[in-house]
Amino acid sequence: MRDVIQTKTPATSVSHDRRASYAGLKHFTATALERVGLSHTDAQTAADILATTDAWGTFTHGTKLLYGYLRRLKAGGLRPRGCPHLAAEAPAWAIVDGDSALGLITSAFAMRTAIAKARTCGVAYVGVRNSCHFGAAAYYSWLAAQEGLLGISMANDIPSVAAPGSRGPVIGSNPISYAVPAGRYRAILLDMSVATVAGGKVYAARMRGESIPNTWLVGADGKPTTDPCGFPEVGALQPAAGHKGYGIALLIETLAGIVTGAATTCSVGNWMWDDGTKPTRHGAAFLAMDLNAMMPAGQFTRRVEALVEEIHNAPRADDAARLYVPGEMEWDRYDRALKEGIPLPSDVQASLEKAAAVVGLDRNTMLE
Amino acid sequence: MRDVIQTKTPATSVSHDRRASYAGLKHFTATALERVGLSHTDAQTAADILATTDAWGTFTHGTKLLYGYLRRLKAGGLRPRGCPHLAAEAPAWAIVDGDSALGLITSAFAMRTAIAKARTCGVAYVGVRNSCHFGAAAYYSWLAAQEGLLGISMANDIPSVAAPGSRGPVIGSNPISYAVPAGRYRAILLDMSVATVAGGKVYAARMRGESIPNTWLVGADGKPTTDPCGFPEVGALQPAAGHKGYGIALLIETLAGIVTGAATTCSVGNWMWDDGTKPTRHGAAFLAMDLNAMMPAGQFTRRVEALVEEIHNAPRADDAARLYVPGEMEWDRYDRALKEGIPLPSDVQASLEKAAAVVGLDRNTMLE
Repeated sequence: MRDVIQTKTPATSVSHDRRASYAGLKHFTATALERVGLSHTDAQTAADILATTDAWGTFTHGTKLLYGYLRRLKAGGLRPRGCPHLAAEAPAWAIVDGDSALGLITSAFAMRTAIAKARTCGVAYVGVRNSCHFGAAAYYSWLAAQEGLLGISMANDIPSVAAPGSRGPVIGSNPISYAVPAGRYRAILLDMSVATVAGGKVYAARMRGESIPNTWLVGADGKPTTDPCGFPEVGALQPAAGHKGYGIALLIETLAGIVTGAATTCSVGNWMWDDGTKPTRHGAAFLAMDLNAMMPAGQFTRRVEALVEEIHNAPRADDAARLYVPGEMEWDRYDRALKEGIPLPSDVQASLEKAAAVVGLDRNTMLE
Repeated sequence: MRDVIQTKTPATSVSHDRRASYAGLKHFTATALERVGLSHTDAQTAADILATTDAWGTFTHGTKLLYGYLRRLKAGGLRPRGCPHLAAEAPAWAIVDGDSALGLITSAFAMRTAIAKARTCGVAYVGVRNSCHFGAAAYYSWLAAQEGLLGISMANDIPSVAAPGSRGPVIGSNPISYAVPAGRYRAILLDMSVATVAGGKVYAARMRGESIPNTWLVGADGKPTTDPCGFPEVGALQPAAGHKGYGIALLIETLAGIVTGAATTCSVGNWMWDDGTKPTRHGAAFLAMDLNAMMPAGQFTRRVEALVEEIHNAPRADDAARLYVPGEMEWDRYDRALKEGIPLPSDVQASLEKAAAVVGLDRNTMLE
């Protein structure tokens, strides 16, 4: 099965229940990336990241992004043959210069470097500069968990989040993710931003003419508001749990932006809207830890499994059908997606149509 | 100045504005700890941690804890001459067995070990088992920042926080702290729990007969409630920002509890209320990173200073007098406390009276 979208309905009549196979979606994505000059290997890597993210149901960070990446790769702000390399290193750490390659490629390279170093040293940090938007942080953490290691991934971005008391954004929504290998269970997997909610959620409420909870946004005056109408032109997202989310954002900025030599806060480029010929200079950071090596064989795994079971078996509120360990909702969707296809939302389908047009691919040709 | 409390008013008439000098408070604390058998060095270390925490204004985690620590040290659940030691190690990591020593001693030893390893390796992780309550996480992170390193500290604890959908607590309020050396500014310093608010804040509302926001607590039925009346007998704190705080809690449990061989979740002992003759088996985790070594000399510091200034100079809401970097409120209080004395709240004063009684110290004898 290499069909992307299992229907031949014209692109203009997108619907909500169109399903794509993981393999078809990956193949389409890789083909498009090769068309703008990525090597076969890099195209496969990036396509796996985006298709896997869609399979998890994280549609905001999956193949929907392909169109924007392709535009920037064609314009030159992202370099199709950019070659991420170690700018500085020691046995337990490295700084990677992304060479303006696609952020997905640089990030996978960086986490793989961290994994290799953690296998030797037990713990390793790899920072990244000259990168770009890196998609879903979870994917890189999962790379580590697949190798039996704990992985932590984070990145900085353009400011969109307020500090307590600020009028307007001062820091990025700076994603952070971790994955813990969990033996006979799927990896514990968290991927979160430091904002209370994603900007897209605020914007969707605006489009529907709805008010929002007063913990999501500050308005033009820097005060909490239930009115999303000005966003994103003015206002800023509130940090998750106030000073806590704000504090974590600055730790991420330090590890992903400051120490790597990447751009920080307002000097980071907007990968979607800024001049496509210029690099965005995002930073990122990856940690890998070989926790299994720190305990007698098998003990770490057994202890993680016991924690998962303890949570599954804990008493529940009447309306809670199940208690989840982070990532279980995503893994449920992933398993279903690989069996039944990925139910691409209409906005993702529309974006894929635009991506196909950018590289002169007819979506239907992908059905062969 | 070695006076603890600069007044001779009897203990029964405690007031809110009694001030203690940092040196006097530290001396009193160290003397009390030596009386129950701690070495001079360990007593000094622990006393500095508790007095510094009070100077930051974090009175819930300062010398107020001394009374409980002394009781447990006398009962044997904490061992006055317990000797924390490396149970396993490699150049970039170690697992410390706390030998049931005071958690403060074990934690300071562990972070110092992490600092030494990070000086060689750039990054280091030190996990801890057989520890106990460790006071304020911020102190250990600050140890690293004082040496020019980034420090991260965390610990597990008895369950007090709900998972989304759980009826009752499943995970500890698991504190996490970090400190970043900031050149001509004081270290950026965050110390937070993964709960929306501290249990003490819920209990205080109960005592005042007030209702609480519906994001603080779940009641006996596992559903959000504005009624604090059942807490802490029933109900559980809500995780900060819902699944985000819950997810971070599990990462902390992994690094502080699972991989260290410490007790986890409900097998951790309650250091205040459980049998004082038994160890609580808390776990903790410390990371140190020599970020200065990863950049050309001085560059990391200049970049952190620039970030601090950028935040200070960002536009503010009308009612915000100032934008704070994490820790600045604490450093302001610290500077004032060292100059003018520490304004001990009445509950801390009452606890110090009880501590003095446990070891047969007359508070007034401390004024000599």
